[in-house]
Amino acid sequence: AVNGSRLWQSLMDMAQIGATPKGGVCRLALTDLDKQSRDLFARWCEEAGCTISVDKMGNIFARRAGRDDSLPPIIMGSHLDSQPTGGKYDGVYGVLAGLEVVRSLNDMGYVTEAPVEVAVWTNEEGSRFAPAMVASGVFAGVFDLEYGLSRADLDGKTMGEELARIGYAGDQEVGGRKVGAYFEAHIEQGPILEAEGKTIGVVTDCQGQRWYEITFTGQEAHAGPTPMTRRKDALLGAARVVDAVNRIGLKYGPAACATVGLMQIHPNSRNVIPGRVFFTVDFRHPKDEILAAMDAELRAAVEEIASGIGLESDFKQIWYYAPIQFDADCVKAVRNGVERTGYSFRDIISGAGHDACYLSKVAPTGMVFIPCIDGISHNEIEETTPEWSTAGCEVLLHAVLERANA
Amino acid sequence: AVNGSRLWQSLMDMAQIGATPKGGVCRLALTDLDKQSRDLFARWCEEAGCTISVDKMGNIFARRAGRDDSLPPIIMGSHLDSQPTGGKYDGVYGVLAGLEVVRSLNDMGYVTEAPVEVAVWTNEEGSRFAPAMVASGVFAGVFDLEYGLSRADLDGKTMGEELARIGYAGDQEVGGRKVGAYFEAHIEQGPILEAEGKTIGVVTDCQGQRWYEITFTGQEAHAGPTPMTRRKDALLGAARVVDAVNRIGLKYGPAACATVGLMQIHPNSRNVIPGRVFFTVDFRHPKDEILAAMDAELRAAVEEIASGIGLESDFKQIWYYAPIQFDADCVKAVRNGVERTGYSFRDIISGAGHDACYLSKVAPTGMVFIPCIDGISHNEIEETTPEWSTAGCEVLLHAVLERANA
Ligand SMILES: NC(=O)NCCC(=O)O
Ligand SMILES: NC(=O)NCCC(=O)O
Repeated sequence: AVNGSRLWQSLMDMAQIGATPKGGVCRLALTDLDKQSRDLFARWCEEAGCTISVDKMGNIFARRAGRDDSLPPIIMGSHLDSQPTGGKYDGVYGVLAGLEVVRSLNDMGYVTEAPVEVAVWTNEEGSRFAPAMVASGVFAGVFDLEYGLSRADLDGKTMGEELARIGYAGDQEVGGRKVGAYFEAHIEQGPILEAEGKTIGVVTDCQGQRWYEITFTGQEAHAGPTPMTRRKDALLGAARVVDAVNRIGLKYGPAACATVGLMQIHPNSRNVIPGRVFFTVDFRHPKDEILAAMDAELRAAVEEIASGIGLESDFKQIWYYAPIQFDADCVKAVRNGVERTGYSFRDIISGAGHDACYLSKVAPTGMVFIPCIDGISHNEIEETTPEWSTAGCEVLLHAVLERANA
Repeated sequence: AVNGSRLWQSLMDMAQIGATPKGGVCRLALTDLDKQSRDLFARWCEEAGCTISVDKMGNIFARRAGRDDSLPPIIMGSHLDSQPTGGKYDGVYGVLAGLEVVRSLNDMGYVTEAPVEVAVWTNEEGSRFAPAMVASGVFAGVFDLEYGLSRADLDGKTMGEELARIGYAGDQEVGGRKVGAYFEAHIEQGPILEAEGKTIGVVTDCQGQRWYEITFTGQEAHAGPTPMTRRKDALLGAARVVDAVNRIGLKYGPAACATVGLMQIHPNSRNVIPGRVFFTVDFRHPKDEILAAMDAELRAAVEEIASGIGLESDFKQIWYYAPIQFDADCVKAVRNGVERTGYSFRDIISGAGHDACYLSKVAPTGMVFIPCIDGISHNEIEETTPEWSTAGCEVLLHAVLERANA
């Protein structure tokens, strides 16, 4: 029903933009490379007969008209931005599987009742601009436009400035329109499907997240003549929090995840006791009350560690969303799709956040997962197979058709 | 005997170059700002009637002729480069106190038996290029020229390239000439003199140092769907080493110092488990056998921590020098200088490394310390007083005269 090799070829073509030596991509949100990937996507969609629009958060919508074009659209989508050392499939797969659905409908000359759209959401990764999924969050009314456009990278450049610079500050209002349903296909980014030999994950839930920014300020001093007992070493404090974060993750495991992914040391000189350290914490759990318990333990640990060393601590939770349950009918549409195609499957909870999480606030939403090798993602070696890629796209097609013709 | 206010004014003038908002300087070795400070120093020396020469490591020598100019020179000196957030006195004080000695001799119309030189040593700090004191080390034959010129910063630029770029790749051979004696004046950079109310530190010894570079390699993976037990988190490993380094420092205290000052996290993204971390360790102790014990504990800790997490570890000791005893006659010349001037003093062991440490390998060497406020150095708020500054310069003058006329 879909052309799997065309989809695979498109994935490989897109992966040329920002390709890295180890087979991955570096295509940070709103860089020149992000612009190139958007331009290529838009060209492909126009070639497939779609109409393109861009909203004020730079979200792109490629629309294939329905028989009754006044019906709310069924939207498929994901993102084209990547981590600094990201993979070829994270996000891109969901966008290009959506495009392949459109191309397949064209091949069949099939007209859906409702219009069908393929969406590219801006800055899903949250790597260059925190938090993640910020533009789908604005679409869903979780954040206001001003908040979205003012998110800044570590150099102080804002999303608003960078959208204008690359020519993707669109004129459409962000969100505020009715969406018939939203479906996102994605690689699992974890090890479960592959380990259990299942081809499709029917995503029922997504775990909740809390992100933090912590700055410890101590006192810069000379590493040589400054006695150990007179020091206020900000890196020592940050290091102890890294260990505490790991302990909290293990304590609330196996479902809990706890990570310090980013740290900036000041002045970062071999013979200077670090005077200031900025770092982030990422907590996840499928149960909101456990996430709250992890939060309480982190706050206590940070306070104890900082006061033990005599550091000033600036502690901010910068992002939170509670665990999400996807729409029962959309989950069923995905399951029906799997049953029609006959692939092996299991229900699964998403460990990563996805634009689908925010879309679920304003539209019935479902997700389709396919396996990735060794569960590795956010890594240049991220890999999946053409067979899995085709399977996920077929399931996506069926789910979309069920809703577009409902 | 010396013009303390002229010295202070020169310190303030030099501090304009690379001045930072908090009253310090950022004048990393071989940057454009380093060049500006060198140019200003050279101009001042020429105005004072000195002859300037520059060697292949960029070390500058400003020479004031002696009555018998064939005698080996008495050299005073220190450095003009700074930490990224450094102070106005670290290094600069020793250079400009040397210049003030020359200016005072001029004022008095005094001709010394042996010639007197003021030296500026390249890249003493070891912040932009590791290790510290590399150019005085080449002068002393501890390192060869090729090693010195090939030291690279974190962007891969070498000292040789950068010396050429700023026009300070001189034509003189590095070292290999006889030095009558070497005296370096410096702020203490520690709390002892001020706490005990002493104006002058007669430096008898300098503690030994070991510097390390460690790279932990684990596996980048997604912070969300990657179970805690499957992770190979390079930052967790580095954090545990930071804590171990601190424990080792405290264990061998109060004289031991142990610091992680620099850390680079890869890819440094909030929702990616760090796959690689590079960091440094700085160990110091006045006793070589204790430094060796600290070394052994570090090696054991790094191995245990890395294997506990499943990280690959690349461990290098990149710098080592044993504790140093300064020349008894030069120490005595400094003590005689203090006695003549009547300032309060105590003998002291240097906690920081100084170019004097390497000069002591090829010349009778002594050092003069003056207090700094709260013992703070390698910090923009580093401070001393005009009175202390004048006192140290007077003692330097007397020590130099004793040796130049010996
Ligand atoms: N799917 C994905 O990699 N999302 C990035 C946001 C997150 O860290 O959950
Ligand atoms: N004096 C001084 O700050 N030297 C830098 C080299 C060291 O760290 O000891």
